[in-house]
This record gives sequence, C-alpha cells and structure tokens, in this order.
Amino acid sequence: MTDVRVIEIKKSVFADNDEDASRLRSELKSRGTYLLNLMSSPGSGKTTTLIQLINRIKDKIKVAVMEADIDSDVDAIKIKDATGIESIQLHTGGMCHLDAEMTRQGLDNVSLEGTDLVILENVGNLVCPAEFDTGAVRNAMILSVPEGHDKPLKYPLMFSVCDLVIVNKIDVMPYFDFDIDKCSEYVHMRNPKARIIPVCAKTGEGVDAVAEWLLEEVYNWKH
Amino acid sequence: MTDVRVIEIKKSVFADNDEDASRLRSELKSRGTYLLNLMSSPGSGKTTTLIQLINRIKDKIKVAVMEADIDSDVDAIKIKDATGIESIQLHTGGMCHLDAEMTRQGLDNVSLEGTDLVILENVGNLVCPAEFDTGAVRNAMILSVPEGHDKPLKYPLMFSVCDLVIVNKIDVMPYFDFDIDKCSEYVHMRNPKARIIPVCAKTGEGVDAVAEWLLEEVYNWKH
Repeated sequence: MTDVRVIEIKKSVFADNDEDASRLRSELKSRGTYLLNLMSSPGSGKTTTLIQLINRIKDKIKVAVMEADIDSDVDAIKIKDATGIESIQLHTGGMCHLDAEMTRQGLDNVSLEGTDLVILENVGNLVCPAEFDTGAVRNAMILSVPEGHDKPLKYPLMFSVCDLVIVNKIDVMPYFDFDIDKCSEYVHMRNPKARIIPVCAKTGEGVDAVAEWLLEEVYNWKH
Repeated sequence: MTDVRVIEIKKSVFADNDEDASRLRSELKSRGTYLLNLMSSPGSGKTTTLIQLINRIKDKIKVAVMEADIDSDVDAIKIKDATGIESIQLHTGGMCHLDAEMTRQGLDNVSLEGTDLVILENVGNLVCPAEFDTGAVRNAMILSVPEGHDKPLKYPLMFSVCDLVIVNKIDVMPYFDFDIDKCSEYVHMRNPKARIIPVCAKTGEGVDAVAEWLLEEVYNWKH
C-alpha cells in the first residue's frame, strides 16, 4: 500500500489570523510558490477533480498537494497513486477548518524548493473554511450538481470569498433539477467577478479550462 | 408569497452545553414533546425528505419544524407550503452549528402546547453540528448517494452520534460509484446500533420506513 506522510495539525496560537495570512502570502510570494485553497461540501468530488487537474499541469509546473481531513488518509493516497506528485495528509483533529498558522504547519512538511504550486484541499464544509484566510493566493470551490443550484443563497460567505467556482458532475445534470443559469446568477450575486467552470471530473470534461486558469494564475504570481 | 417567522439566533452564554442539553431534554420530556436533530451535508436533500416524511405523519401527531440556516428562508417556506405545518426559520448569523441554548431560542418561538414532535433541520455541515448536543432525543443524518459511501470514514464523529442514517437519492445509484454494503459496514464501524434506511425523497420510496421509525420513537418518548 502507498505510504503518505500524515501531519497532525495543532490549534493555532496566533490571535490575528488575517495578519498571519498576509505574512504567509508574502513569504510564498518571495519563494515564487502559489498556494490555492480548494473548498467544497463533503463528496463534491474535490479529490477526483484534483487528480484530473494535476495530470494536466504536472509536466509544466512542480505541484504538491496537502489534503486536510478530520481523519483518514484515503485522499492523500489516492492523489499520490494517481498522479505521482508529492501529497501529504493533514489531520485537523476534529477542527472544521484551517487557518494560516495551521496551513503553515502543513507547508513546513512540503519540499517547497522549486515548487510552483501547492494545492490545499480544505476540510469538506461550506461554512467554517470560508471564514479563515489560509494565506492562499486564491480561493476556489467545487459545487456539485446533486447539491443544487441554490447553494450560493444558503452559503453566501463561501461564494463571496471564491474567485473560481467549479461546477462538477455535469454528466448527471439530466437526473437533477439543477439550473446552471440560475447558479451563475446566484454566484455572481455573491461575487460578480467569480469565474464559473462546469466540469465532469469523472471523464475530465471541462478540466482543461481549469488547468488553463490555474497555469495563468501561477505564471502571473511568479512574474 | 408565504410568510414564515425568521428568528435571529444569538451566541450562547452557557459554559456547559452538555448540562444545558440534558436540562432541555428533561423539559421536553415533561411536556411530552420529542425533538429530532436532523443533520447532513449541504444539498443532501434534507428539506425534500422532511416534506415527504411530514406528509406521512402529520395526521397522526402534531409536528413543527425549525429550519436552521446561515442565511435565507427558502427552506422554511418550502416546508410550510408543502405540508401546511408550523415551520420557522432560524438564522445562525454565520455560526456553523446549533447548541442547546440556540435550540432553545428556536423552541421559544414554536407553539409547543400539544406538539408531539419538533424536527430541527441543523446547518448543512458534517463537522461542527456533530460536536454539540442540541437537547434532541435522537440525532439522525442524511447521506446522499452522490456524496459517496466513504463519508463515515472521513466524518467519524457525525456517524457515531447518529442513531438513524437515511441514505437518500438511491434513484441515481446507477450513475455513481456508491456501494450500499460498504456504506453500512463503515456506518456500523462508527455506531454498531445505527439504523440505516435507503430512500428516494424525490419519489417518496423508502420514506414509509422512516415515518414508522419516528412514530415509534415519539410514542415511546411519550409513554
């Protein structure tokens, strides 16, 4: 069985998370490493999407992944098996989110030398992770079709902090009452600039557009 | 448009939530009111399931619903329109869960006289709501097929505190890689006594079994 490193994250001691997150972002900027914070509900397909995405960019830039979870290490193993890149598991010990200091504890265990992009797969939760700046350059989230197009109405903060909304599982659209136009309208109520990309992570449909967006983001960050 | 009452929940002041929850449970016992705490991920179909369930039991017992959400009142309106029963909306003001004192703030706005059952639809989240005893007699949760059968591995606490796991959206099972036997095995790792009931809330399939379970629960609580 594949072995991945499992890091037990400790509670933060910093009082001012916003300040700490800005500091972390500056450090990453000076290293030339881009950090993406990926959020979603449980079961939206974060790991499957990541595998498709990483396999499209790993020959162009150096990528590492940190998988945060309450428990288990199945995701980190899946990523490593399917992509071959560095993948570590962060255990939050029951905590429902990551802040900047907790993200830093993870980054301390990644070989950052020469790494262009670190993707943080946050805890599956549409509430708490949105409240904490992790120090990432951008926040992205995955909304899957079975969850419904009304989610931006119910989880306003999540959608207002995300610059990219990936709508996953579009292959099952015929079986669900999901209106992509309404979804876009609701997302843009929360963040008028948000980019929306529909994908099917299972088949890879649409993931090229995500890869393109991300490669451009990383390039701009480094130049 | 239907009007529902919207209650803005305030942060709790009680230090000991477990004690407060036990006190609330005793008060409900002496009134003969059963409180069910229903949890799930966002978009698992809590509201649709509730509508099917309530329409099967509302002629036998008096039911009221409290819909907790970060924002919006769409769920409380849907329930009221589709069932005609008393339905109020609780706004948590960004908080990711309800504890006993917050639940009590909601109950203070329900006409409890003669009410046999109050169903609390908790905030859509598999992490935080599991950590707080709301004072409910039982916890139940809905896991929907598109979320995957591995969720009990990733959200252990949620599955260990629930006595009933409703597996929803079984109509789309053919389109997802969901193994109901593995699901049961993982659920029972967390709580060997958990009852698992597969349903399709859209068509109502399986909901009779949930209604039966709940009517028996309420009967036992009152006698």
